[in-house]
Amino acid sequence: MKKILIAGGAGFIGSHLCDRLLDRDDVEKCVVVDNLWTGLKENLDHIRDPRFVFKKSDIETFRTSERFDEVYHLASPASPPWYMAEPKRTISANLMGAFRLLDLLVDNGRFCFTSTSEVYGDPLVSPQPESYRGSVDCTGPRSSYDESKRCTEALLFEMQRTKGLDVRVVRLFNVYGPRTRRDDGRAVSNFLTQALSGQPITVYGTGDQSRSWGYVDDIVDGLERFFWRSPHDYRGPLNVGNEREISVLDVAKYVSSLTGGTPIVHKPPVPQDPTNRRPDLTIARRVLPGWECKVPYEEGVRRTLDWFQEGWKPSAVA
Amino acid sequence: MKKILIAGGAGFIGSHLCDRLLDRDDVEKCVVVDNLWTGLKENLDHIRDPRFVFKKSDIETFRTSERFDEVYHLASPASPPWYMAEPKRTISANLMGAFRLLDLLVDNGRFCFTSTSEVYGDPLVSPQPESYRGSVDCTGPRSSYDESKRCTEALLFEMQRTKGLDVRVVRLFNVYGPRTRRDDGRAVSNFLTQALSGQPITVYGTGDQSRSWGYVDDIVDGLERFFWRSPHDYRGPLNVGNEREISVLDVAKYVSSLTGGTPIVHKPPVPQDPTNRRPDLTIARRVLPGWECKVPYEEGVRRTLDWFQEGWKPSAVA
Repeated sequence: MKKILIAGGAGFIGSHLCDRLLDRDDVEKCVVVDNLWTGLKENLDHIRDPRFVFKKSDIETFRTSERFDEVYHLASPASPPWYMAEPKRTISANLMGAFRLLDLLVDNGRFCFTSTSEVYGDPLVSPQPESYRGSVDCTGPRSSYDESKRCTEALLFEMQRTKGLDVRVVRLFNVYGPRTRRDDGRAVSNFLTQALSGQPITVYGTGDQSRSWGYVDDIVDGLERFFWRSPHDYRGPLNVGNEREISVLDVAKYVSSLTGGTPIVHKPPVPQDPTNRRPDLTIARRVLPGWECKVPYEEGVRRTLDWFQEGWKPSAVA
Repeated sequence: MKKILIAGGAGFIGSHLCDRLLDRDDVEKCVVVDNLWTGLKENLDHIRDPRFVFKKSDIETFRTSERFDEVYHLASPASPPWYMAEPKRTISANLMGAFRLLDLLVDNGRFCFTSTSEVYGDPLVSPQPESYRGSVDCTGPRSSYDESKRCTEALLFEMQRTKGLDVRVVRLFNVYGPRTRRDDGRAVSNFLTQALSGQPITVYGTGDQSRSWGYVDDIVDGLERFFWRSPHDYRGPLNVGNEREISVLDVAKYVSSLTGGTPIVHKPPVPQDPTNRRPDLTIARRVLPGWECKVPYEEGVRRTLDWFQEGWKPSAVA
């Protein structure tokens, strides 16, 4: 039986991962540590499992005498306006968080980390294979996130090389779906929040920049397979995302069509916004046979709209 | 009058920087914090200045109630065999070191950081301008050093952007000269130590890989000008190095010729050893008018050989 810690488990992806972890019958205890910076306690309110424990704390300073068989490190904001506002805290969450989690792991325990396609920066090759070294400005406004993810990967793979640490590192591409914050600040959430508030949909720049939009159920299915379910000995880094590339403008138009023709307005482009991002899934297909992103974006956006509407009370708009 | 802290001040470059800092007459106190991991207390033994204080401590956990007007962050091993042996400690020294030093700085204090040309990885352009984003494998065996330097740059420039921190960041290319450790593990030190011990000179790979060898006096002159002496408002990153590119084999041959024809042997190449590294000094010339690397490598290697020979007692070989 396993004791498990999920740092950032109240977040958008973290809370979905908790649901999957609690489906396992070899889990004795499942502790979420989250400071609720970008995570939301309500993402976990549906959990009634006696094995589940929530602790409100920064992960860097989380105090416990327990040790865990598996740790899942998702403690980081993931949306540019959030990490750009508090870059020092972002670096601390990722990197000092990783140092603390290493201390909380039993010998031979497993360390699972959600890195990001942002390690590729504004990529000069498309799609991006895991071997692509990236094009990141380490002095730029996105660097707190991009570089702390890169450095945390370095820490973990070097702990594997020198100490035999059992690591699993994924690089997540864009993810959307239910439990996204309404004030998340990224495209799908922005568009839906704007449309539901009767405001025009805002597209930064031309909207020609493309993203690989992965519906959260598909992405978390990939995490589950890679982190514990599929038999394989690949440690990562592993791209997990949707290889279907859609422009930001196409998503805006689709949300507009779903919401009675909400108007679309353009604003100046965001600094160092990547022009494209698309996973090379060659390794994922080998390591996770049978896994794929099944939910088309039209279906995923409709489901996310439904979820936004269900919770659309004045209090939830804040 | 200024209070100054130099983290890593007992190291090769750090100790030379201390000598320059103590030449200033606006310095009230100069505290070196060094854990003597790769630094050597003997590098500071010649200092008799009453303003000078040495504290043996990791910088991450250095305890003091003092605050400093200027901090100099040089606390990191810089040689591959050293950082590859202890990657976790390397990341901690750089990044947690930087967090601690931020806490020790007065409001409006200046934070000076020695980053590295390793942020460029195995570069695809030559020479490398500061705007080059680099080609670093963030999962590779050099990543603890490369990525922790990149992430520390990110932290500092983001602290500048969000909090107005007064930062000065240099990217140092290869440096050699007196006070290099005999067991440093990099080419010039290796070659001299081998030749003086009567062993053959070891070249990894063909030796065609080139480096920009900067003699320490020239490099520290660049640091002095950039960190405090030259009037300019450029915060960095600033390449500081010798733009004359010399192959590893040429240096080996030169050391051989200086030491009576010491034989040269080749060993297999080191993993991910960069094939070339050469600074673009366009910005340095603008920001530091008059600065240049004046000491030719032949002269610098001779001076370093002299220094190695002076201290060449059985106890120093260890």
